[in-house]
Amino acid sequence: MNMLEIILDKRYGRSLTDEQIRFFVKGITDGSIPDYQTSALLMAIVLNGMDEREMTTLTLEMADSGKKNDLSYLDGIPVDKHSTGGVGDKITPVLMPLISTFGVQTVKLSGRGLGFTGGTIDKFESIEGFNVEVPQSEFAEYAKDTGMVISAQTPDLAPADKILYSLRDVTGTVDSIPLIASSIMSKKLAGGAQAIVLDVTCGSGAFMKTEQDARRLAEAMIKIGKGAGRQMCAVITDMDQPLGRCCGNTLEMQEVYETLTGKGSKDVTDVVIELAVKLIQMADKADGMSEDELRQECLNRLSDGRAHLKYSELIVSQGGRIDAIGSPVYREYPFDAMHVTSPDEGYVMSVRADLIGKASVLLGAGRLAKTDPIDYGAGLCFYAKRGDKVRRGDVLCSLCHGENAQLDEERLFDAMDLVLEAYEIGPEPPESREAVIDVLS
Amino acid sequence: MNMLEIILDKRYGRSLTDEQIRFFVKGITDGSIPDYQTSALLMAIVLNGMDEREMTTLTLEMADSGKKNDLSYLDGIPVDKHSTGGVGDKITPVLMPLISTFGVQTVKLSGRGLGFTGGTIDKFESIEGFNVEVPQSEFAEYAKDTGMVISAQTPDLAPADKILYSLRDVTGTVDSIPLIASSIMSKKLAGGAQAIVLDVTCGSGAFMKTEQDARRLAEAMIKIGKGAGRQMCAVITDMDQPLGRCCGNTLEMQEVYETLTGKGSKDVTDVVIELAVKLIQMADKADGMSEDELRQECLNRLSDGRAHLKYSELIVSQGGRIDAIGSPVYREYPFDAMHVTSPDEGYVMSVRADLIGKASVLLGAGRLAKTDPIDYGAGLCFYAKRGDKVRRGDVLCSLCHGENAQLDEERLFDAMDLVLEAYEIGPEPPESREAVIDVLS
Repeated sequence: MNMLEIILDKRYGRSLTDEQIRFFVKGITDGSIPDYQTSALLMAIVLNGMDEREMTTLTLEMADSGKKNDLSYLDGIPVDKHSTGGVGDKITPVLMPLISTFGVQTVKLSGRGLGFTGGTIDKFESIEGFNVEVPQSEFAEYAKDTGMVISAQTPDLAPADKILYSLRDVTGTVDSIPLIASSIMSKKLAGGAQAIVLDVTCGSGAFMKTEQDARRLAEAMIKIGKGAGRQMCAVITDMDQPLGRCCGNTLEMQEVYETLTGKGSKDVTDVVIELAVKLIQMADKADGMSEDELRQECLNRLSDGRAHLKYSELIVSQGGRIDAIGSPVYREYPFDAMHVTSPDEGYVMSVRADLIGKASVLLGAGRLAKTDPIDYGAGLCFYAKRGDKVRRGDVLCSLCHGENAQLDEERLFDAMDLVLEAYEIGPEPPESREAVIDVLS
Repeated sequence: MNMLEIILDKRYGRSLTDEQIRFFVKGITDGSIPDYQTSALLMAIVLNGMDEREMTTLTLEMADSGKKNDLSYLDGIPVDKHSTGGVGDKITPVLMPLISTFGVQTVKLSGRGLGFTGGTIDKFESIEGFNVEVPQSEFAEYAKDTGMVISAQTPDLAPADKILYSLRDVTGTVDSIPLIASSIMSKKLAGGAQAIVLDVTCGSGAFMKTEQDARRLAEAMIKIGKGAGRQMCAVITDMDQPLGRCCGNTLEMQEVYETLTGKGSKDVTDVVIELAVKLIQMADKADGMSEDELRQECLNRLSDGRAHLKYSELIVSQGGRIDAIGSPVYREYPFDAMHVTSPDEGYVMSVRADLIGKASVLLGAGRLAKTDPIDYGAGLCFYAKRGDKVRRGDVLCSLCHGENAQLDEERLFDAMDLVLEAYEIGPEPPESREAVIDVLS
């Protein structure tokens, strides 16, 4: 077997055999296949596709390319949740404590943000003292104590995926359903979950711009997961406008706190509840409740202090500071530096999440390069979202930076321009759209 | 401008701009674009194609990537001929002396053979003393003296093509009309010809397996050449069975001698005459003759000793030995080692040229790696070709090696097996087919 034949098979649109895929993944992991052959195969996969069996094999081989987490120490069926990313996505910090109140234990391995998509790890790090570098050897202990742990992704999971990803990034082969699906799922499988709920976002701020593409990606990942013997489910959610009331690190963690104390926005709460119900059911912790009862019970626990209590436990267990009433203490608080007002009267037709994300990075909330520092206090708060009626001069959005940070005026004005471009104002109200678009399984 | 954007444009099926193609060719030539990006773009080109303007620009940029030959010292319009290769293709050594009798001067830069396709340079080297390493500075002198010179391709023509080709070879991106056409034409343009006749072969022993693909390649090259301001013409020829009566180096040069003395096989002579007529016309040396008159005049000169005399002059001018009657003296003479006989009675339906080529390499006539030595005496002689009636036991073909060479029996038997596989015998005569299939311009 040799790599040239593998490239030629895919180039001519043939399915690769399991042995060929194994040879390829082994070769990229041990460095025996040169990058120029790998990138030729990647482009052939992008343009000629992969069938379900090929995707599943690729995923399993990548998952097997390094160490794998053993989550058997968790009580019950190990579950995991994955989001394909978005702007203002603060679901995980709400979801973990909520499902923990039902006895669903979670080990959450997450990433830092890059580009306009924020990272869950960065958000937790906005809490003073919060340690995200938990050694793997201590996961079991944390899970036993508080029912959950969040940690920056360990570097030895699915190394083949890491190698492929860095090459895809520079060879124009990122945007491909089989490659995205196998990349995500390889890390999830190596992470040890037996049941996985996917939050597949779609819209301007998501990787998948259309609902159709989001469905295709969701279906591909469900097939791969089921082919690997996992329980699978996917929720298609709207990411055409940012999720919730703000984006930025401290700002979003403040919104997390509000949501966990029953004062969340409808869209964030809707997505949290949908995912929570699926995770609780898959983990076999529904305790005889129907789906509707479970949904109501989740809402109850966001209001009656139980979810909030769990959240406080999580923060304290990982070294984070909370104040006397259980609210987190942040590294940097937002300073409201500028209000962007509506130039017209009418309805907000759309708030383009990609442009809001870019503005957020400009303000200092995100990174363009991996080593860029973050201003935890930076971000945007939305005073109007899709469907809201606004008058000329009404505040659409405020721009924040950290109270101790310096931000030059030019960046502030550039961010404002992006925000004005992001907000489309029209004469008639737009069709209403829910945050949860569909559930697939 | 950056390479990632160029890859993405082609990945999404967009035409590249002239600036983008220029950036790419400059980048591969100066080494600033890494191989893994180049191979991703190559695969995208293979699968998404290139339009006429893109191919022409790519060709011109590659032609401009190194030194270019100036053929203005030639008398008249500089012409060149290129064949896309085949088994038993001994056209060039017949063609050059023949058109030289009409005053068409040629500087022929040619390659050595690799794989089952023989190289013209190797064939000339089978003549004792023949020097193919003529310095470029002496080309003008040779052209003035004998009207022609043949030399191993100089290394500095179209270096970008060389870099691309070596990468295509290991990334499954060889077989692509735009890439093949631009590769061939870049070398032809850098070689300095103002009028180019292409011999585009098709069939089992050719790069293009079907007549349709050969036409597509021919049309692409004609468009590129015309776009670059050259006179262009292409002859589609049959390479489903080997050309002529034999393949191998000395064996083919013996057939060249026969053809130049009026005793050539019909297929070789037909192709030679067709190409000669086009070249003479393009070089403006037809001297008022109609195409039919020119055709007849070419045949006359193959029989009346004029072409043969020119051939002797060519050999002597490049240091080759001829005997008292003007026949070349060879480095190694063929020894007839085995006869392969027909297992059945019937008609030869086909003689697969690719398998004959492989048998020829096994016998020592060709190279699998660039550094493999060649047995100039090795090769095959065909006693039956397509359409011939054979009885059981009739000799189909003989296998030769050099009289001084050692060949192990196993290779001889492997070659025999290939030959038996190559010859298909059927009960009814096949449809007859001419060597010259069509002429395009």
